[in-house]
Amino acid sequence: MSEVVRPVGGPMRELLRVAPGPVDLEAIDPRSTPGLPVAAGYGPARKDWARTQVELMGAELGRQQEMLYAAAQGAAGPGSATSAPAQADAGLGGDRPRRVLLVLQAMDCGGKDGTVKRVAGAMNPLGLHIRSFGPPTEEELRHDFLWRVRRALPPPGYVGVFNRSHYEDVLIARVEGLVDEATWRSRYAVINDFERELAEQAVTVVKVMLHISHAEQGERLMERLTDPTKFWKYNPSDLDTRARWGAYQAAYAEALERCGTDAAPWFVVPADRKWYRDWAVAHLLRETFDGLHLGYPPADFDVERERDRLRSQRRP
Amino acid sequence: MSEVVRPVGGPMRELLRVAPGPVDLEAIDPRSTPGLPVAAGYGPARKDWARTQVELMGAELGRQQEMLYAAAQGAAGPGSATSAPAQADAGLGGDRPRRVLLVLQAMDCGGKDGTVKRVAGAMNPLGLHIRSFGPPTEEELRHDFLWRVRRALPPPGYVGVFNRSHYEDVLIARVEGLVDEATWRSRYAVINDFERELAEQAVTVVKVMLHISHAEQGERLMERLTDPTKFWKYNPSDLDTRARWGAYQAAYAEALERCGTDAAPWFVVPADRKWYRDWAVAHLLRETFDGLHLGYPPADFDVERERDRLRSQRRP
Repeated sequence: MSEVVRPVGGPMRELLRVAPGPVDLEAIDPRSTPGLPVAAGYGPARKDWARTQVELMGAELGRQQEMLYAAAQGAAGPGSATSAPAQADAGLGGDRPRRVLLVLQAMDCGGKDGTVKRVAGAMNPLGLHIRSFGPPTEEELRHDFLWRVRRALPPPGYVGVFNRSHYEDVLIARVEGLVDEATWRSRYAVINDFERELAEQAVTVVKVMLHISHAEQGERLMERLTDPTKFWKYNPSDLDTRARWGAYQAAYAEALERCGTDAAPWFVVPADRKWYRDWAVAHLLRETFDGLHLGYPPADFDVERERDRLRSQRRP
Repeated sequence: MSEVVRPVGGPMRELLRVAPGPVDLEAIDPRSTPGLPVAAGYGPARKDWARTQVELMGAELGRQQEMLYAAAQGAAGPGSATSAPAQADAGLGGDRPRRVLLVLQAMDCGGKDGTVKRVAGAMNPLGLHIRSFGPPTEEELRHDFLWRVRRALPPPGYVGVFNRSHYEDVLIARVEGLVDEATWRSRYAVINDFERELAEQAVTVVKVMLHISHAEQGERLMERLTDPTKFWKYNPSDLDTRARWGAYQAAYAEALERCGTDAAPWFVVPADRKWYRDWAVAHLLRETFDGLHLGYPPADFDVERERDRLRSQRRP
């Protein structure tokens, strides 16, 4: 097998997209495998098949990522697009080079880090812009909740990954009562405006909820409490959060419903099986890139003339 | 072959380290392969061997990187070490979690980007902090030359990569006459003080010059002028820089001599052969990690008690 096999039943962007209307997460089986083709085989063989497919897609994603990056370099003038991550620029401009932003949200142990490692890890780290969001700092709290998010946007030409995001402001903030209801309720519209603005600025947003079951979370937490190389991933507060599972699922369902827009759709990826999760997210990214119809920029110099200059140069 | 084979003749950190005293880059053959063991075979077979070895080292580097990261998470309290790249903190503190910073310098086409892709790409992108330095922005020019460098340091627990660095301030700045001689001459001491300060702050700096030949640069430039998928990497000014090859080599030699310190040694990696370059840099990183004697942090909670809590929790 050396070719990327397409999902069955349609592109993953259709199969996994959150449909309009009320969202019922209970109705989505975290162990299901939408789109997985017969070619994957049965039983444990599927895992190896999917891992190989993710590797194959990695090469393809890397090429797409390079074209995205190349377009931005051309626009800024080669050699001048450095110091870039510090210059995340959310200014307007329809002709601006594109950016892609993968937003990852999940319950604890949902596999955000693993997805970054496996899927983003298949791309060139030079063109990645990964940002994690934790509890806001004091400085961040002095600003509106999108302030730190705007500063974390990928620069033109980069593939950004948000490991958690502004959605925590309608998830943790809601369930843990960090703000009053009127405040978190008002945020759905603010988020939709923000994400529409991003689309207008050539930022293609792919929002993914990694959907795990309560039982699977329990097993993964027990692993972190058993394997000494995983103790560092555990925090006693994880169990307090787990105790509020139902409230979090309700908060997720409402966020998916209110903020699943055409400008920035939400996808739910069944994530109890790690190999399926990575395979599905890789396809979502591949399909997103395909939709951008990227290509390498033409030369902005006289190619023949430069070749002649090079040939005629002697070592000084 | 499934084991990492050690270099022959000593660790790469000894074989490639710039010795004290005047540096003669002409005496280092960019096609040489110091440390390459007999196991690599002969002729083209060596390339495959080296690529496989880099992959094997990638898994090892990934483990080391995770331990580095874990130690920082533990120190900051799990779950709180996010938004980290925005918080690069260069404050003092001997007990602070370590950081590793790989500084890459080279002439155009020297392979900086390729090294990032192949060697850094073998690690988890979540724990990487890659920064590229181009011509300083207006804001950067209003500060001293290290200002933007301090802001680009990796946060504790991260592996940083500088794609170009503060060394451009004694290379480009010198050769292109961007500052007067007294200014660039004064910078060697400033850089040495800065790098000693980094060492005291638990930042382990590995400085690598990728050393290519004038002829190899010519071939790679011609490739960029021939393959339309590489046009974007070319800039006509590259040939102007190439015309000053000798002056740049002299500037490199002096930087290597004046700033090769025990706190932050310089390594020269022969880089005409890309497979050797990646193999050598991977070993330099591996040996650097080994020297840090990293381990996973112990649990900072009562493991038995947490397991009991988890077991007794029912789905709400």
